[in-house]
Amino acid sequence: MKIGKETIPRTAISTADEHSITVRGADLCRDLIGKISFTDYFHLLVTGRRATGAAAAVLDATLVAIAEHGLVPSVQASRMTLAAAPDALQGAVAAGILGCGSVILGASESAGRLFAEVDALAGDGGDLDAAALSVVRAYRADRRAIPGYGHPLHKQRDPRVDALFAVARGQGVELRYIAIAEAVETALAEVLGKPLKLNVSAAIPALLLGIGFPLGALKGVPILARTAGLIAHLTEELERSIGFALSYQAARELVYDGAPPNPQA
Amino acid sequence: MKIGKETIPRTAISTADEHSITVRGADLCRDLIGKISFTDYFHLLVTGRRATGAAAAVLDATLVAIAEHGLVPSVQASRMTLAAAPDALQGAVAAGILGCGSVILGASESAGRLFAEVDALAGDGGDLDAAALSVVRAYRADRRAIPGYGHPLHKQRDPRVDALFAVARGQGVELRYIAIAEAVETALAEVLGKPLKLNVSAAIPALLLGIGFPLGALKGVPILARTAGLIAHLTEELERSIGFALSYQAARELVYDGAPPNPQA
Amino acid sequence: MKIGKETIPRTAISTADEHSITVRGADLCRDLIGKISFTDYFHLLVTGRRATGAAAAVLDATLVAIAEHGLVPSVQASRMTLAAAPDALQGAVAAGILGCGSVILGASESAGRLFAEVDALAGDGGDLDAAALSVVRAYRADRRAIPGYGHPLHKQRDPRVDALFAVARGQGVELRYIAIAEAVETALAEVLGKPLKLNVSAAIPALLLGIGFPLGALKGVPILARTAGLIAHLTEELERSIGFALSYQAARELVYDGAPPNPQA
Amino acid sequence: MKIGKETIPRTAISTADEHSITVRGADLCRDLIGKISFTDYFHLLVTGRRATGAAAAVLDATLVAIAEHGLVPSVQASRMTLAAAPDALQGAVAAGILGCGSVILGASESAGRLFAEVDALAGDGGDLDAAALSVVRAYRADRRAIPGYGHPLHKQRDPRVDALFAVARGQGVELRYIAIAEAVETALAEVLGKPLKLNVSAAIPALLLGIGFPLGALKGVPILARTAGLIAHLTEELERSIGFALSYQAARELVYDGAPPNPQA
Repeated sequence: MKIGKETIPRTAISTADEHSITVRGADLCRDLIGKISFTDYFHLLVTGRRATGAAAAVLDATLVAIAEHGLVPSVQASRMTLAAAPDALQGAVAAGILGCGSVILGASESAGRLFAEVDALAGDGGDLDAAALSVVRAYRADRRAIPGYGHPLHKQRDPRVDALFAVARGQGVELRYIAIAEAVETALAEVLGKPLKLNVSAAIPALLLGIGFPLGALKGVPILARTAGLIAHLTEELERSIGFALSYQAARELVYDGAPPNPQA
Repeated sequence: MKIGKETIPRTAISTADEHSITVRGADLCRDLIGKISFTDYFHLLVTGRRATGAAAAVLDATLVAIAEHGLVPSVQASRMTLAAAPDALQGAVAAGILGCGSVILGASESAGRLFAEVDALAGDGGDLDAAALSVVRAYRADRRAIPGYGHPLHKQRDPRVDALFAVARGQGVELRYIAIAEAVETALAEVLGKPLKLNVSAAIPALLLGIGFPLGALKGVPILARTAGLIAHLTEELERSIGFALSYQAARELVYDGAPPNPQA
Repeated sequence: MKIGKETIPRTAISTADEHSITVRGADLCRDLIGKISFTDYFHLLVTGRRATGAAAAVLDATLVAIAEHGLVPSVQASRMTLAAAPDALQGAVAAGILGCGSVILGASESAGRLFAEVDALAGDGGDLDAAALSVVRAYRADRRAIPGYGHPLHKQRDPRVDALFAVARGQGVELRYIAIAEAVETALAEVLGKPLKLNVSAAIPALLLGIGFPLGALKGVPILARTAGLIAHLTEELERSIGFALSYQAARELVYDGAPPNPQA
Repeated sequence: MKIGKETIPRTAISTADEHSITVRGADLCRDLIGKISFTDYFHLLVTGRRATGAAAAVLDATLVAIAEHGLVPSVQASRMTLAAAPDALQGAVAAGILGCGSVILGASESAGRLFAEVDALAGDGGDLDAAALSVVRAYRADRRAIPGYGHPLHKQRDPRVDALFAVARGQGVELRYIAIAEAVETALAEVLGKPLKLNVSAAIPALLLGIGFPLGALKGVPILARTAGLIAHLTEELERSIGFALSYQAARELVYDGAPPNPQA
């Protein structure tokens, strides 16, 4: 069945023949293996460009910041899945990644889109605070959630935010999107009448847009990072399973409030 | 429902409170973000130990070697999934990871188990060639596939193998498992009567067992690496979709050989 | 971590003790097994109500209509996944389901929401044609796709549409949403200046909203149905694998248009 | 890349042209929609044959028996996934299906293989009890788990077992595999020195092998059935979310027993 007009598939990422593998124009075996870090390679794969030292440092920092935060729902789902299906590690990783959605880990991308709106509205030399306030008010008027602000555990600013901003400042990369992220934080406090602080999901695009990482790939950063955390949890799960203990605890106070059993149905 | 005896979940990976996040005993925001690469952090998460410089170089090399190899089946599956469900990037990544199974990318782990058998059989100072021959013959007698040898495209030795072995030699890490991998290659040629060369899925455990990476986590390395490649492909898919073109081509020569349509069923 | 306000989980679907399992108030072993069809049970599980005979016939018809349509992209993705990971049938089913997204099989739900808008706008005794035209124009003004109309293969009306409408008419269920679906078809022809015919993804909500099936569960119908088709394909794949042949064909005309290999990188 | 020898994909399940869809030789729109139940269609899709009335009743009974058992681990994983990613229902269904593995719902298939071994060993007119004892002893000698016996909640015989066996007896289908399942139950008590009773995962293949349902498709029955239960739970989750409450409860007694935070790392 032909869906859409295009029938010839094309890719600019890689090609191979019997003797060599070419990725983004480089020879994998001669130029990349042993010559480039995995983070640099991720940057090259996604953008087609080699990362500068500063860009690689920033990308490393964001990946480290978001890879692990304990027994969050997606890690629980992943460990329960491995306990039930221990032969298929890939299935348990997939189950964990499926929880990287709009509410939890997908906020990096949507916060990035919010910042891009503020950037575009302010324009060159424009007033970021005014633009942030305008965009926040428009989101509120449309009843859209503001992604990347507030955290259920870290009521003050998420501690990862300052650590990430310090990396960006230390590396001397473009800081405009950090300024935008902070302008949105100020605007939110004004509009809501109470503070709602930056969390890691807003800090990540604030850094990555500053190194030219594409908006469309932002969601991939928490997914790649969490995969590393998931593999650590699943390695532990294989040694010392807690998947069923988590499930037992989860349902201990479960209330059934459906139709009562019918004695003579 | 209580499945198994354990009811209290335990983890040694991380914990958090309102002001800090502790991972493997380190303070994430003070000690790790901006101080450690993503590859080093993956090593710390999985093993609980900081990687030496040599271990990090070896782990980087294996991740770079296996991250990308063009439009392989799992990448096709992932791009088709995104074309059909473009709003859920995490679903397309998950679909791609689900193809990291026993036949394709899971061979790293099973090759590692094969090498551990040879290692145990040979013992300290034993004859690796004899042990390899013995283990290969036992696999053949049980009609078990030998994982990590032969490649549909790279009929000679997969070019990634020499590049990876060069990194291990250059970094001065333990080379015993490389010797075992080569002993198995020799044994295979003898048993089969024709060469079947090392591929990347055998080279990966040959390197990683040499740096003390745990057997139980080996399968996680190709999964993490491929996630990076998948994110690159899905970023390209969002810009220039080929998922449906791939599907159109896949079915162009499809033959239906079922029951013929029944005019008067 | 506490996300949201609620900490006590509740469900109205089922509960169990050592000797019995209660589902929606019925005793599973006494009242349901052997007494009710799987389709009736699906209706009971989702809605909490027993299906009337007419409702069950309509639900059966929609499930049969959408379960199978050959080697569509999600079936290809599923078969490729099983070829690569043959030990994990559940992983291959999951990969296939992940392709039930907004573009392909998710259109049933979004078409249902479109029809609900027309229904609400027309009100009791209102003009469905005028309401349909108004809603279609509003979608076009917002550059939103109209879900459920047009088909890449069935250029005339998808043949499943008339078969489904005939079942609804024969069973004497509420036909208002079929009238709405046809009013939208007429409105589309007027707005676009050319016909764009109803497909199965619009016919399904047109039937199911007429039997009171909840809007929020509409997307579940193609997912459940396709799972049956996927299991048939995966059973065939285990007997006679075509996953790698599909992948080979898919990439036969693949063009690499990235950076050329760099001889001296 | 060409993996394996076959390059032309073939299928016997279905084909389509612009005006019709053929499934297993029948015209979908003329012969199947409105004429056949979803359960009958599932049988036709998987086996290529129309189900007899008795076979359809048995298949319905097994699907109803296994579709729902409350907040089991895979349902929890699925609801947590939807809470985190509410826009992608297909992702939450996939996460739930990924928990249908060897330990939990995959036991139907492995129990079926066990019964087939007993059947083959006994042969026509042979002693099922002796064959069952022999096979159980061989499993124990190989330290293989006996799938389909014992249940964490239903310590006596799982109540679904008798309900399913009653359906098979009432429908007059082949009862040999039920006799085998009971012979294994007797053998287990003898070998273990204590009773370990049949559960639903053994009863399902005991029924389905009796209607000629293929061994290779057995695992598909609990997967299809659970998909129905998952859709009910996810519909409830969208109305009244408990995914995060389950996760909160799961981690309430979580113990971190890793390296203590290092004050001067």
